[in-house]
Amino acid sequence: MRILVTGASGFVGRCAVAELVTRGVETIAVSRRPARAEGARTIACDLLDPTAMRRALEEARPDVILHLAWTVEHGKFWNAPDNLDWVAATLHLMRAAREVGVRRFVGVGTCFEYDWPAESDCDERTTPIIPTTLYAVAKDAVRRIGGEWGELAFAWARLFYLYGPEENESRFVASVASRLARREPAPLSRGLAVRDFMHVRDGGAALAATALSEMTGPVNIASGHGTALRDIAETLARLAGRPDLLRIGALPDRPGDPPRIVGTARRLSEEAGFSPKYGLEEGLSDVYAWWASHVKSA
Amino acid sequence: MRILVTGASGFVGRCAVAELVTRGVETIAVSRRPARAEGARTIACDLLDPTAMRRALEEARPDVILHLAWTVEHGKFWNAPDNLDWVAATLHLMRAAREVGVRRFVGVGTCFEYDWPAESDCDERTTPIIPTTLYAVAKDAVRRIGGEWGELAFAWARLFYLYGPEENESRFVASVASRLARREPAPLSRGLAVRDFMHVRDGGAALAATALSEMTGPVNIASGHGTALRDIAETLARLAGRPDLLRIGALPDRPGDPPRIVGTARRLSEEAGFSPKYGLEEGLSDVYAWWASHVKSA
Repeated sequence: MRILVTGASGFVGRCAVAELVTRGVETIAVSRRPARAEGARTIACDLLDPTAMRRALEEARPDVILHLAWTVEHGKFWNAPDNLDWVAATLHLMRAAREVGVRRFVGVGTCFEYDWPAESDCDERTTPIIPTTLYAVAKDAVRRIGGEWGELAFAWARLFYLYGPEENESRFVASVASRLARREPAPLSRGLAVRDFMHVRDGGAALAATALSEMTGPVNIASGHGTALRDIAETLARLAGRPDLLRIGALPDRPGDPPRIVGTARRLSEEAGFSPKYGLEEGLSDVYAWWASHVKSA
Repeated sequence: MRILVTGASGFVGRCAVAELVTRGVETIAVSRRPARAEGARTIACDLLDPTAMRRALEEARPDVILHLAWTVEHGKFWNAPDNLDWVAATLHLMRAAREVGVRRFVGVGTCFEYDWPAESDCDERTTPIIPTTLYAVAKDAVRRIGGEWGELAFAWARLFYLYGPEENESRFVASVASRLARREPAPLSRGLAVRDFMHVRDGGAALAATALSEMTGPVNIASGHGTALRDIAETLARLAGRPDLLRIGALPDRPGDPPRIVGTARRLSEEAGFSPKYGLEEGLSDVYAWWASHVKSA
């Protein structure tokens, strides 16, 4: 059993590779720039180049592909035309995969494909799919085609909110944790929005479990628990010992921000046998410790 | 105003090009093999090759693209993996189009995207989209992405049933007309299924009108009228003067065949000002005459 992971140098890609290696799975880490991926074989490859992609596949000859690569430039990926290129590259990858004998393909989608219910959780089987950004529409389009094609066992892992060390500082958890670590004021909105947060190492482990399972169709990579942003910020401030630095309500609430984005974790738990290792307190503590050891005080 | 048509040598592509030329529009006919396209400029180009596609676009510099090219091998295209390549090629074409200054893109979809209502007509605004073949899922995926992207004015022409001279003989109208022209028995099912038939020259003209309009979103290329297959066959047999050759009920009804696939023609009529030139009797007469002059009697 050999598994190829694309986007292997990304935030969650690194963790998925680490989990696969820990489980003793022969792992090939593919990324544009050579990945840090201890215990895995690495291949540097720009998947937008079909010839290079094909060469990497033929060199690796995996049984399973976990495809994480996509355009992810923070703040831009929602509507970037690169999303069209990544749909094309993903479909080319699927076709080539079939031709070199890959039997299973796990694509990676997003909780933004759902029409989030305001008072319950996104369920893979029952929640309507109404994506409203180019990114989510493009992801959903790949899922529709992959699910219909039928020549590869096809699963679709929908990521919810991941946080962890080394996260982009413009994202919520990293922004609050880094400011607190620098002993700077941390402004936020009223923080009423409820989200499903998972530590990125759990996210990587959940993706690995999904890839190694026989599940097909959509699978939430979610904890099943919702937490208000305000509670996240308050926990971080408590861990930092500086609740005085929190500025709750200093920023406006985002207009149109959905009140709740939480995923059911039933498939992940029952069909992949996965459960997260990090509780939220423990996970945020890990993140705060990372920032505390990586920032210089102001 | 310059318009580029892909798939220009295909069944309906030829007619779309002819209509544009008749209307005096500067037309560039793109096809894999050089197209017969009197009055149009032709470019031979395999659109699956991104470099060749880009070169053709830069040479042509159109304002509008009418994109008909797709995998169409009869009997195979429904589930052919080539559908994945054509999604990718279409997305590449859209991106390149935007970059060379194209302002409007008309993609071509299919009535098979709809969840056909059994007793009414498929409406662009209200009929649910539930494609059930790889072909239709792939087409629908392009429509979703093109509609969301927003950097090109994007219309989506959903073809219903086209018939006409030079049609592939394995298709319904051509199979009956060619057999009658050869004075051979023409077997069919009970022929109860109702379909929306349009002469291919009207289909081409409707596509041209759509390309030249400012409509965006889905547009049925349909007549708005349903006809039972049995009535088509009987009309052809009458035109051939050989009703005795019809073998109605000699073939089994296709299991699961939808009873009715008819499209509303309201947008095409009201927003593009289009109305078909051929009534069904006149259109079938044209087809029968073509077959009569092109087949050798058995």
